[in-house]
Amino acid sequence: MARPKNILFIMFDQLRWDYLGCTGHPHLTTPHIDALAGRGVRFSRAYVQSPICGSSRMSTYTGRYVHSHGASWNGIPLKVGEMTLGDHLRQAGMSCHLVGKTHMRADAEGMARLGLEPDSLIGARVAECGFDVFERDDGMLPEGPDGSYDPDGARQFNADLRAKGYESDNPWHDFSNSGLDAAGNVLSGWFLKNASEAANIAEEDSETPYLTGRGIDFMAQAQGPWCCHLSYIKPHWPYIVPAPYHDMYGPGDILPVNRSQAEFDTAHPVLKTFMSTRIGRAFSEARVREAVIPAYMGLIKQADDQMGRLFAWLEQTGRMDDTMIVLTSDHGDFLGDHWMGEKTFFHDAAVKVSLIVYDPSPEADATRGTVCDALVESIDLAPTFVEAAGGTVPGHILEGRSLLPILRGHATETGREHVICEYDYSASPVAEMLNANLRDAVMFMVATKRWKLIHCEGGYRPILFDLESDPQELTDLGDSADHADVIAEMYGRLFAWARRPSQRTTRSEAQLVEMRGKSGRRGVVLGIYDENDAPLELTVKYRGRKARPWSEIRRPPED
Amino acid sequence: MARPKNILFIMFDQLRWDYLGCTGHPHLTTPHIDALAGRGVRFSRAYVQSPICGSSRMSTYTGRYVHSHGASWNGIPLKVGEMTLGDHLRQAGMSCHLVGKTHMRADAEGMARLGLEPDSLIGARVAECGFDVFERDDGMLPEGPDGSYDPDGARQFNADLRAKGYESDNPWHDFSNSGLDAAGNVLSGWFLKNASEAANIAEEDSETPYLTGRGIDFMAQAQGPWCCHLSYIKPHWPYIVPAPYHDMYGPGDILPVNRSQAEFDTAHPVLKTFMSTRIGRAFSEARVREAVIPAYMGLIKQADDQMGRLFAWLEQTGRMDDTMIVLTSDHGDFLGDHWMGEKTFFHDAAVKVSLIVYDPSPEADATRGTVCDALVESIDLAPTFVEAAGGTVPGHILEGRSLLPILRGHATETGREHVICEYDYSASPVAEMLNANLRDAVMFMVATKRWKLIHCEGGYRPILFDLESDPQELTDLGDSADHADVIAEMYGRLFAWARRPSQRTTRSEAQLVEMRGKSGRRGVVLGIYDENDAPLELTVKYRGRKARPWSEIRRPPED
Repeated sequence: MARPKNILFIMFDQLRWDYLGCTGHPHLTTPHIDALAGRGVRFSRAYVQSPICGSSRMSTYTGRYVHSHGASWNGIPLKVGEMTLGDHLRQAGMSCHLVGKTHMRADAEGMARLGLEPDSLIGARVAECGFDVFERDDGMLPEGPDGSYDPDGARQFNADLRAKGYESDNPWHDFSNSGLDAAGNVLSGWFLKNASEAANIAEEDSETPYLTGRGIDFMAQAQGPWCCHLSYIKPHWPYIVPAPYHDMYGPGDILPVNRSQAEFDTAHPVLKTFMSTRIGRAFSEARVREAVIPAYMGLIKQADDQMGRLFAWLEQTGRMDDTMIVLTSDHGDFLGDHWMGEKTFFHDAAVKVSLIVYDPSPEADATRGTVCDALVESIDLAPTFVEAAGGTVPGHILEGRSLLPILRGHATETGREHVICEYDYSASPVAEMLNANLRDAVMFMVATKRWKLIHCEGGYRPILFDLESDPQELTDLGDSADHADVIAEMYGRLFAWARRPSQRTTRSEAQLVEMRGKSGRRGVVLGIYDENDAPLELTVKYRGRKARPWSEIRRPPED
Repeated sequence: MARPKNILFIMFDQLRWDYLGCTGHPHLTTPHIDALAGRGVRFSRAYVQSPICGSSRMSTYTGRYVHSHGASWNGIPLKVGEMTLGDHLRQAGMSCHLVGKTHMRADAEGMARLGLEPDSLIGARVAECGFDVFERDDGMLPEGPDGSYDPDGARQFNADLRAKGYESDNPWHDFSNSGLDAAGNVLSGWFLKNASEAANIAEEDSETPYLTGRGIDFMAQAQGPWCCHLSYIKPHWPYIVPAPYHDMYGPGDILPVNRSQAEFDTAHPVLKTFMSTRIGRAFSEARVREAVIPAYMGLIKQADDQMGRLFAWLEQTGRMDDTMIVLTSDHGDFLGDHWMGEKTFFHDAAVKVSLIVYDPSPEADATRGTVCDALVESIDLAPTFVEAAGGTVPGHILEGRSLLPILRGHATETGREHVICEYDYSASPVAEMLNANLRDAVMFMVATKRWKLIHCEGGYRPILFDLESDPQELTDLGDSADHADVIAEMYGRLFAWARRPSQRTTRSEAQLVEMRGKSGRRGVVLGIYDENDAPLELTVKYRGRKARPWSEIRRPPED
């Protein structure tokens, strides 16, 4: 089987699935990404494992559900010992590098317990979620009264800007993510009304072109076989983009908002609470959507142009012929749909993502330009990559399924009948609003092609959507007596999933089979009354042995 | 609060709960263990987390369910990174030592991946399940055509025997676990018909006295505060005991077998398969029970006498005043009940264990000599020990509940309404007999004080026992329509348990609460349209900033 030599794994952050030309946006054209889809397979039902950056990414990078790896919110460290894509690829002879964002938080306590130094080769990989870091850029240098959420954020990017003359203690904020008024006042991109401003930066110096250049820098010097995770920050907030992208789109280009008054009025209490946060209220305002969405579209248009630059470079260098290219996102963005902003719930706007896989192998010729509606999860990428790298997929660790059979035209489905997504809000203020117990501030989504059930811990009724008759997910059938059977069936799926042996990761399936009966052949012979009741071979070591009586060896102690 | 200085954690292997004087055996007297119960609290509903040595112990030593730690069968390594009792106790200022058996299998691949050398301090602890090893003795040196199940088994014990003159390449087998006929032929203890022979060894040289001596050796030199896991091999098979214990009991002392023909004839298919193994068939024979059970009782009698020796030493040295003593087992033994031998199913004979906790603190005076019928799990020991050591119980890692409130008379229940036990037979020949998928060769037990439900993966109906009306567990109500509600309720308990966030172990509950709203105070200000829509403090860093226009800094590239 021919295999790609390298893998270029491109991730955008908060790129909503329907904001591409090839996924049907009526006003936003993305010819370069569409061209990649034309050369590969576009998956139309790809779901992330959590609607929040860190947890979604930890699932992608470990190939395991959030319930399995435990890093269930931003800032909850991925535990030391958890295997990553990088670990698996290196075993298969492929190196694995990072250019951009991971949202990884290292398990510093666990590393200290095991004596792992962050500056050792092994320690650095553990701390960086298995990647060898070419450049880590989580894309933010926010500043508040208690300091910065990510004091190391945008470090190299900021240094680069300062070297170019962008004078500021935080050029990431003052130039790349803010506008400027005529009086020289910075118009911060954190404030949504400024989203329609042009970011005060030369377009080629802004984040998406910068990271594209860094990705090219990496590939230009890499020998391979390599996997390069080129992980963009945008179109994630702050929502602001430099000229000429800042005014390419206007309110007339915005998709109609997908929400209903009845949906709000009758919302499940947990959903209602998310609608009621400051973010939900803000994005329910027309002025916010009208400021933010054109900027969001501009960021995507810029990203598409950068894909054009990147793909041209790959063509020129021959890498297009030997490199698998994967393009996806870590989650979507509500953008006011369903009375919410951000992403922390389970509607398709948040948890369905675009996924395009281009495989240069001749074996994949039959599927070029096709759209596959199989139920796909982001945890499928790790096994896909391992298989593409020529490795054996460790099915006892990786919980996803390789997409290669689909790419090569041998299958049209993954074999999966439902997808799972999880959200843990115990570390979010929403838990306080709901007065939720720490172990109950957790939600699960299970979805087939037809139904989506959302279970909120804490004694709530479920939420249910009929994705066939209500693809807009406006009618919650969770308390419909007519749907009791569907609800029971969906709960049955979630129950079976929850019982899976997800932690039995130290023995492969082949090893488990090999273990059967092995102890008997290593002398553990049980249930044998008489030596003649068992095959001679199994018991021969225990037969025909001689010994002296103990009383000749040891005298009883004298009193 | 006064605290014990040290913890002596005594475990017997395969000691069935009802084979003690204090738990009601009519013919087996165990005055020393009973005396400990008289000075402490005896828990009458203590359950292990798995009816097999290794998995049960990994739960005890990690304080976590099998489904959480993943070492679900003997020989499946405990994954590197999993925290242990030793890790928690050392954090609390108490050292943690091993004298005897753990059945730990090190995760050699994981250790190599993280660069942990087995002979380093940290590596040795990881490899030995968190213990500092005074003596590791897993208690077996079996030998078969493919070598030994445990080539390192009984190493120091064997060396000790050889030094005393027991000449053999395997004195563990030839002397301590075999009889001898008049012609000098070794009568191997592996063959059940030899169980009634006297082991060919001076009683004081046999395993239980040997390990008692090693425990005393440890304590005599230890400074403390220490936890010593004195972990005996017996009364685990090979079932054979030296004089005078070998003929203290006869067939007349055997408890009537607890089984019924109807139970066999109508057995659930998975249960029937366990009944049909060579072990089940053997222990269903009267001759096997009549040979084995008197030896098993003799081994327990010997163990009790050794407890007398141990407790006398503790009294003499003052350790009885400053040492918490815990006595339990890793599981029971069917001994022919329910048409089974060994332990790998969920009847009380296998999964309920004796648990006695003696706390020397004056605070525990009120409960001395009492019996507590709270639902207790073996995972409760780790948090009990951490609390006794003065540490803070990490509830986000340890899944059990400290028993100190019960010991101190502040509570009579753990707050737990059901116990969980698991068995994974995917690496056992039973999986082949049932033609089970590797992921379906798994069973769960959930039991309240009233009901015990057993769920077997693979599409089977459940097994249900009414522990109140049928404490002998002879009548399976799993297909009783009258019990549909009970079954649904028990499944609900199992489902809720399966969804628990067991892997969210890198942030404590207090840390999760502390995280709430923290990102906003570190500059991540979301959903703010205008700077005046948020408190000045949160946004002040983004206000009043000045910058130069980018076009003064960077010229557009010239063509």
